[in-house]
Amino acid sequence: MKNTLVERLNSKRAVIGIVGLGYVGLPLLLRYVDVGYHVIGFDIDQSKIDALRQGRTYIEHIPSAQIQAAASGNLEVTTDFSRAKEADALIICVPTPLNRYREPDLSFVLGTVDALIPHLRPGQVLSLESTTYPGTTEEELLPRIESRGLTVGQEVFLVFSPEREDPGNTDFSTRTIPKICGGHTAACLDVGMALYGAAIDTVVPVSSTRAAELTKLLENIHRAVNIGLVNEMKIVADRMNIDIHEVISAAATKPFGFVPYYPGPGLGGHCIPIDPFYLTWKAREYGLHTRFIELAGEINSSMPDYVIEKVIGALNQVKRSVRGSKILVLGIAYKKNVDDMRESPSVVLMEKLRALGAEVAYSDPHVPVFPKMREHSFDLRSVDLSASEIGRYDCVLVATDHDRFDYDQIRKCAKVVVDTRGRYRQAAGNLVKA
Amino acid sequence: MKNTLVERLNSKRAVIGIVGLGYVGLPLLLRYVDVGYHVIGFDIDQSKIDALRQGRTYIEHIPSAQIQAAASGNLEVTTDFSRAKEADALIICVPTPLNRYREPDLSFVLGTVDALIPHLRPGQVLSLESTTYPGTTEEELLPRIESRGLTVGQEVFLVFSPEREDPGNTDFSTRTIPKICGGHTAACLDVGMALYGAAIDTVVPVSSTRAAELTKLLENIHRAVNIGLVNEMKIVADRMNIDIHEVISAAATKPFGFVPYYPGPGLGGHCIPIDPFYLTWKAREYGLHTRFIELAGEINSSMPDYVIEKVIGALNQVKRSVRGSKILVLGIAYKKNVDDMRESPSVVLMEKLRALGAEVAYSDPHVPVFPKMREHSFDLRSVDLSASEIGRYDCVLVATDHDRFDYDQIRKCAKVVVDTRGRYRQAAGNLVKA
Repeated sequence: MKNTLVERLNSKRAVIGIVGLGYVGLPLLLRYVDVGYHVIGFDIDQSKIDALRQGRTYIEHIPSAQIQAAASGNLEVTTDFSRAKEADALIICVPTPLNRYREPDLSFVLGTVDALIPHLRPGQVLSLESTTYPGTTEEELLPRIESRGLTVGQEVFLVFSPEREDPGNTDFSTRTIPKICGGHTAACLDVGMALYGAAIDTVVPVSSTRAAELTKLLENIHRAVNIGLVNEMKIVADRMNIDIHEVISAAATKPFGFVPYYPGPGLGGHCIPIDPFYLTWKAREYGLHTRFIELAGEINSSMPDYVIEKVIGALNQVKRSVRGSKILVLGIAYKKNVDDMRESPSVVLMEKLRALGAEVAYSDPHVPVFPKMREHSFDLRSVDLSASEIGRYDCVLVATDHDRFDYDQIRKCAKVVVDTRGRYRQAAGNLVKA
Repeated sequence: MKNTLVERLNSKRAVIGIVGLGYVGLPLLLRYVDVGYHVIGFDIDQSKIDALRQGRTYIEHIPSAQIQAAASGNLEVTTDFSRAKEADALIICVPTPLNRYREPDLSFVLGTVDALIPHLRPGQVLSLESTTYPGTTEEELLPRIESRGLTVGQEVFLVFSPEREDPGNTDFSTRTIPKICGGHTAACLDVGMALYGAAIDTVVPVSSTRAAELTKLLENIHRAVNIGLVNEMKIVADRMNIDIHEVISAAATKPFGFVPYYPGPGLGGHCIPIDPFYLTWKAREYGLHTRFIELAGEINSSMPDYVIEKVIGALNQVKRSVRGSKILVLGIAYKKNVDDMRESPSVVLMEKLRALGAEVAYSDPHVPVFPKMREHSFDLRSVDLSASEIGRYDCVLVATDHDRFDYDQIRKCAKVVVDTRGRYRQAAGNLVKA
């Protein structure tokens, strides 16, 4: 069974099923089409399926032309999960958010698995890519598969291979980012290596699905903690009247032992603010606290309040309150040069300013209209940044430092600029660093 | 005055005084001799002066031949600080330890400055290289110099330029490690740039002595926190039965956003365990807590206890207590391939094992005899690692993983190996990971 499946994968006769067509699944699907596989894309969201069928993208950095090219190849997309039986490989790329109590919400993963289970058959490989705590594959996926009477490692194969997508990173693509793969058994790993080796330049095997699960978490914990650290250092440096951005740049000239991370108005995106708490939650089962993760979470999530204090202080200098002030937030995506607004601290800032009575507007070349979000509601469109428009606001808050902004003009025309990204070096005149 | 001094520096007619001839001062002194300056080395330790006069090294990675070559050039060494007046530049390279209450101990810096002050004269530049909290140069050195009636920035020049020595690093030397320099005034910075530009390939100016002081602290805080994080992750992974070293290696295949740091038996050396608390102490003046530093300190300093638990567990497996067991500690320098024992966690482990009643021995090719230390006393010589010698011990503890050890032989011959450095991959048989 294993050899047949590996052979089908190697010879590109295998059908690849990608389940979940978001920021992770869509690029992976396109990559398998590129390589020459017959690919079936699954999603429960009819609007995504419709868009793909019409050759329309819904992710800024993936052009429609690329989708149209793929659609002319061996690509089908569907909401019909019973077609899972046609696929030799099923790669699950669904979100793993936190619930309101900062606990893992595996509902998308388990819902997807439960939808696939009735259609599993011998000769398939199932891969989970969603970031999750160590043990998920073994403790949640394995028993569900076995409940169908299928023997994992002999009839079906189970791997965990964490996604490493980095939207907006132009140096690396799905193909060139090395991929970690852990199998439930040695045979599972062999199949996983064949599956990913076909599409990814470098596949790195690890000894277990648990090791693969922890690898992804460690990557994001490392970032969350390092960003937490520089955020704390920013507050200390600010009080000592030292520019943390100057210090970080200077430290970065050390050719070993130091790597720069940059402070900001808080953590954003679908990974860094969330994933670490998957380990926190699981560690409790072992009676352990993940203290660095919790400290990083606390400091990072307090940063919007720090920024708001700076805005209050900046307006206070010109004898204004936040209430009644016109405030323009620049950049509402969670990081520069992308359109992704998931967990964006800019939105938290907008809400806090609105709650304090400010008239809030925003400008973001990547987000022309404030989108519908589950927990946030703003009936706003991106403001065009003419000199006179910038001058209309009592305060301009640089929240996300897209390269497309004209920073010289902003500073020249704004009454007050509050800069959360170290975009400006000299803090003087109308500029406040936050 | 400034132009004359800069001209003397540029034309190599300036006399360079290096004050404090340890791990930092000695390489710097040799570098200035190499470049062709007349150099005077100052130290209060007569034994260092005697060694240098006899062409003998006292630092393993600096060969005696290099000292002899320098001695035949324009080099003088002395304990007579009144000769400071002969120097155009005075570069202070003395230790900045912590006292027993984890507070900055500036006694070496201030003692040195006080010894130099009577001999200061117009036309000199004073540079402090010792790691310290932001404000030291302005708050401690400046008033002492001004008390002599000298105008800083006009008659004498004051800079802070943190040392970045990394003993054992063969990729970089004093000359090729970029050097940060901050001046008390713009003129001070100009002189500092000329002073260091003569000997160091890249000198990076920053806007103030405070920024330069914080730069060095940030570098070491970054390391202390990242090592603390992986130490915490090691404990979590261990309980989840995952090898943290495998996970770190796998994560390190990510080509962006992740940098590997490695866990160990605790923090060692003269920088990482100490320097961060200089900022902690200073931050209190501003009502701030440096929580990442404190957490890293707590976790890193608890690691020896974690290792001891593993040793107890390993011996328990073979029905032995620590009391009465023969335990061989491998590597007592604080990091691999050096002879530096400052703050070495190996010594802490040896003391804890001795306190529990073990018969402790050590082997370290870099430290043939256990040296006299202020706070530790062992009357021991390094044991030669023959197969039969290794087999004599109930437990072999890999504390510092020097490359010169024969790890295959150690494992083959030892009854039990406890590995704190991830030197061995498969934990089975006689191997316990700690």
